[in-house]
Amino acid sequence: MPDQPRVEFRTAPERYRHWRLATEGPVATLTMDVDEQGGIVPGYELKLNSYDLGVDIELYDAVQRLRFEHPEVRAVIVTSGKEKVFCAGANIRMLAAAPHAWKVNFCKFTNETRNGIEDASENSGQTYLAACNGTASGGGYELALACDHIMLIDDRSSAVALPELPLLGVLPGTGGLTRVTDKRHVRRDLADYFATKSEGIAGRKAVQWRLVDEAVPRARWDQAVAERAAEFATRSSRPARGGEPGIELTPLAKTQNGEEIGYRHVTARLDRQAGVVEITVQGPDDAPPDIGRMREQGADFWTLALTRELDDLILDLRSNEPELGTWIFRTRGDPGKVLAHDQLLLDHSGDWLAHEIIHYLKRTLKRLDVTSRSLLALIEPGSCFAGSLLELALAADRSYQLAGVFEDLDSHAEPALLVPGGTTLPQSTAPATVTVGPMNLGPLPMGNGLTRLQTRYLGDDRGLAEVEKHAGEPLTAEEAEQIGLVTFAPDDIDWDDEIRIAVEERASFSPDALSGLEANYRFAGPETMETKIFGRLTAWQNWIFNRPNAAGPEGALRRFGTGQRAVFDRKRV
Amino acid sequence: MPDQPRVEFRTAPERYRHWRLATEGPVATLTMDVDEQGGIVPGYELKLNSYDLGVDIELYDAVQRLRFEHPEVRAVIVTSGKEKVFCAGANIRMLAAAPHAWKVNFCKFTNETRNGIEDASENSGQTYLAACNGTASGGGYELALACDHIMLIDDRSSAVALPELPLLGVLPGTGGLTRVTDKRHVRRDLADYFATKSEGIAGRKAVQWRLVDEAVPRARWDQAVAERAAEFATRSSRPARGGEPGIELTPLAKTQNGEEIGYRHVTARLDRQAGVVEITVQGPDDAPPDIGRMREQGADFWTLALTRELDDLILDLRSNEPELGTWIFRTRGDPGKVLAHDQLLLDHSGDWLAHEIIHYLKRTLKRLDVTSRSLLALIEPGSCFAGSLLELALAADRSYQLAGVFEDLDSHAEPALLVPGGTTLPQSTAPATVTVGPMNLGPLPMGNGLTRLQTRYLGDDRGLAEVEKHAGEPLTAEEAEQIGLVTFAPDDIDWDDEIRIAVEERASFSPDALSGLEANYRFAGPETMETKIFGRLTAWQNWIFNRPNAAGPEGALRRFGTGQRAVFDRKRV
Repeated sequence: MPDQPRVEFRTAPERYRHWRLATEGPVATLTMDVDEQGGIVPGYELKLNSYDLGVDIELYDAVQRLRFEHPEVRAVIVTSGKEKVFCAGANIRMLAAAPHAWKVNFCKFTNETRNGIEDASENSGQTYLAACNGTASGGGYELALACDHIMLIDDRSSAVALPELPLLGVLPGTGGLTRVTDKRHVRRDLADYFATKSEGIAGRKAVQWRLVDEAVPRARWDQAVAERAAEFATRSSRPARGGEPGIELTPLAKTQNGEEIGYRHVTARLDRQAGVVEITVQGPDDAPPDIGRMREQGADFWTLALTRELDDLILDLRSNEPELGTWIFRTRGDPGKVLAHDQLLLDHSGDWLAHEIIHYLKRTLKRLDVTSRSLLALIEPGSCFAGSLLELALAADRSYQLAGVFEDLDSHAEPALLVPGGTTLPQSTAPATVTVGPMNLGPLPMGNGLTRLQTRYLGDDRGLAEVEKHAGEPLTAEEAEQIGLVTFAPDDIDWDDEIRIAVEERASFSPDALSGLEANYRFAGPETMETKIFGRLTAWQNWIFNRPNAAGPEGALRRFGTGQRAVFDRKRV
Repeated sequence: MPDQPRVEFRTAPERYRHWRLATEGPVATLTMDVDEQGGIVPGYELKLNSYDLGVDIELYDAVQRLRFEHPEVRAVIVTSGKEKVFCAGANIRMLAAAPHAWKVNFCKFTNETRNGIEDASENSGQTYLAACNGTASGGGYELALACDHIMLIDDRSSAVALPELPLLGVLPGTGGLTRVTDKRHVRRDLADYFATKSEGIAGRKAVQWRLVDEAVPRARWDQAVAERAAEFATRSSRPARGGEPGIELTPLAKTQNGEEIGYRHVTARLDRQAGVVEITVQGPDDAPPDIGRMREQGADFWTLALTRELDDLILDLRSNEPELGTWIFRTRGDPGKVLAHDQLLLDHSGDWLAHEIIHYLKRTLKRLDVTSRSLLALIEPGSCFAGSLLELALAADRSYQLAGVFEDLDSHAEPALLVPGGTTLPQSTAPATVTVGPMNLGPLPMGNGLTRLQTRYLGDDRGLAEVEKHAGEPLTAEEAEQIGLVTFAPDDIDWDDEIRIAVEERASFSPDALSGLEANYRFAGPETMETKIFGRLTAWQNWIFNRPNAAGPEGALRRFGTGQRAVFDRKRV
């Protein structure tokens, strides 16, 4: 994989090469039928429904569209369009050839998509059902594990398996090890045995060991799958009433050149010299519409439009700009209008669309939390870090809020590296404020199950109470720093230097150490399956991916399929 | 570090080169005064109270002795014998020169020792107080973080710091990142800033940010430290009454040659060809004494003697035999006597010594849980997997219990590779049993806060209740397998093959993937600071240690102190 293509995450069902999405009343069927020749980069064939990033991009798109475009869908069957194989997992030749950063980024995205499947089952009443009509192996079984219910055809040949360890010398790294024990409660010693048997486990034993929920003979298969999907649909808590139309996730307008990626509400300037992306988020132009009009606006409704743009930008930068190690967030606009948009959504959280938008924003912010880039927020005059947009500052590793205003506006008139244009906007003459809103107090939890504020004030209940007391108040830099809502509050005299130093310093540090530092600091407090998957499992997998025993010329991943055995350094570490 | 010495963990205060242990009534003082020339391997000088494995072995010994030899001690001051420096952390030249496995093993042991310090504060009423009479940097500050209270001298030069990231391109990997946020509740953005400032933070700001508990001017230092220690001693819950004598941790008798490591109750046969260590634990010969006699026996009391031997063996094998990737546990003896010893301890858990023995056993079993070796338990006729010794089987990745007896005892008469001598012991003609006892139901939790049984039956309350119902009953292989207490129950016909295959398979897998698999599977369920440190933080650190940005010829760790800057691959992963 010498020349990595620029990865594009925007797609739509009519362009899928690997999946078919069909709905019939409350039941959708997602059929995996991977085009062997459709790899996202050349050099491998996607045999046996194995997947690469391109396959998973389509899956992510389908999962998203089901939530927004199909309010009527209450159960989703994931199955295979191939004979005798459900899915063989991540393509091994792709993994063997891919550079380390590509592998890790690929695994992160697939993990996020599988978490998104669980989020749909848990929060949106779209219950996923894995109908394994053939062997589900490795990442294929891990995809099934992300579903709420796993059915396996009982035909004396189909099995579920995690063959990564015996065959490839790596881990089942897409949540498999975590979900087997923590979600499905497979006993750990049986799980150990299972993960060493490359041929997997089938039939009744797979049920007894809790690896699947049911094993169904071929003769009863179609009927059993349909019955089970109907059952889940009936039990679904999905708020949509029958007949409500979905909204279309229209193509996302995006401009890009080597220096900028632009959307309607989000702009990203790429500074390759400094290793920095400057991301500016534009708040809403207008007051929010009423709920009926929001439905009409659909994908144009500010919060949804912005979230889609941020989502795409995060994915784009993560895949395509690995050397831009620091992301700087700014916002521009009217904090009141942000809060009013938040309020509209929260006032109608029983509305299926408002509900979906909030959860999508939640998932997108979670993506930021697990992004291996340093995140800084710059809170300047004219900004709108309030409510949902304040989450950007709370997700950041550090935030800087200008105390007072820029005295010499001229020096900021040009959009210089670290200080944005300020002179053209009238509101920039008033000091910047931040405002805590109801969106910061519950609806947008992190992967650890806490809000970003709760995580920030972990073990400091008084500090958290103090912040909650100030909810709704625009807080100046001095006030926000005092109660710990922002990291630093330099004034105009110190601003440029302090931020320049922070950014230059960040660029001078080991990128690996930064990734490790941030992955640890961002998730204080309780752990969940999600934080375990991104924290523990991923870290182990990254280590293993990077070891000669896997990735070296004689390692298991490189030697797989060559007929030669891997040569291992036998030292246990 | 080309020729690694055989590391020996047994030591005693009179042989310390780097620490002084003094007690005065209820207050002990542990003074770090590292001998620069006393490195455990040649090639570096231990300047500025920096440490290597040898320094930490003494610290571990001192912490242990305080609990057993000094029942009167209720507060422990950790301080420095050097001017202006508390401790500079792990020696960087040592880290830079050490092979990957050595670094990782070193960090594991230092983590365990720091967790042991917290265990003493939490469970034993020996509260540790870090008296930082000079700068505490890197691992030096992490040592302070393991104490319950941190005092920093306020002299305009002494600071606390985590300079690993800016100076070395690695993480503060001895619990620092976890404890800063999860124990001391330093706000994550301040923690981020702190970890990028190699010069650290001092004085009042260090207190405000919660990095230390107090900053004390030099003039008041000695008095303040003494006062604080006296306070902690007064508040201590240590059960020992005044005047109770400690017991001496007498030198541990140990024989070793290239093929065997032997103690009184534990024998380890090293099979280098197979990559296996066969560990046999001998149960007690006699019924337990009464509590008074137990105190007289002291270090000879079976449970304590066995625990010390296991502890030393685990440490020895981890450091010295990295290529022996599978440990096979067997026991020999009378299950009833094991349970009776357990009962004596539990009946007197208010007794300081019984209390210490139980907690030491707990810590030693935890060491096993984080050991990067595959653990198998073989439960054969003549064994005594009951109560505390059953924990060995529950800690194992898999357990095999023979159904029935060995029909052809002759074939097992020789201590062959995988089947121990059976003919000489009369009880081997009765089928093997396992017995759940009170020690399995609470007193020996894992790092995740659950017992090994709770972890095993995570999410399966009925299964756990069933096992608890059978507490006290000797269970045959069929019964134990039925309720999930053992993994497999092969009979005589299958036994040899099944175990041979399991062991050979294990030896054929990637050692790295096994470490990752086991680290994930062993800790299902909730997370604690401890599991975060060993799971998440360690995995990230291992990855970083293994990356060219740290360990490569141009990496930060290797270039430190050379005057040359590190060259980084800037790709964020």
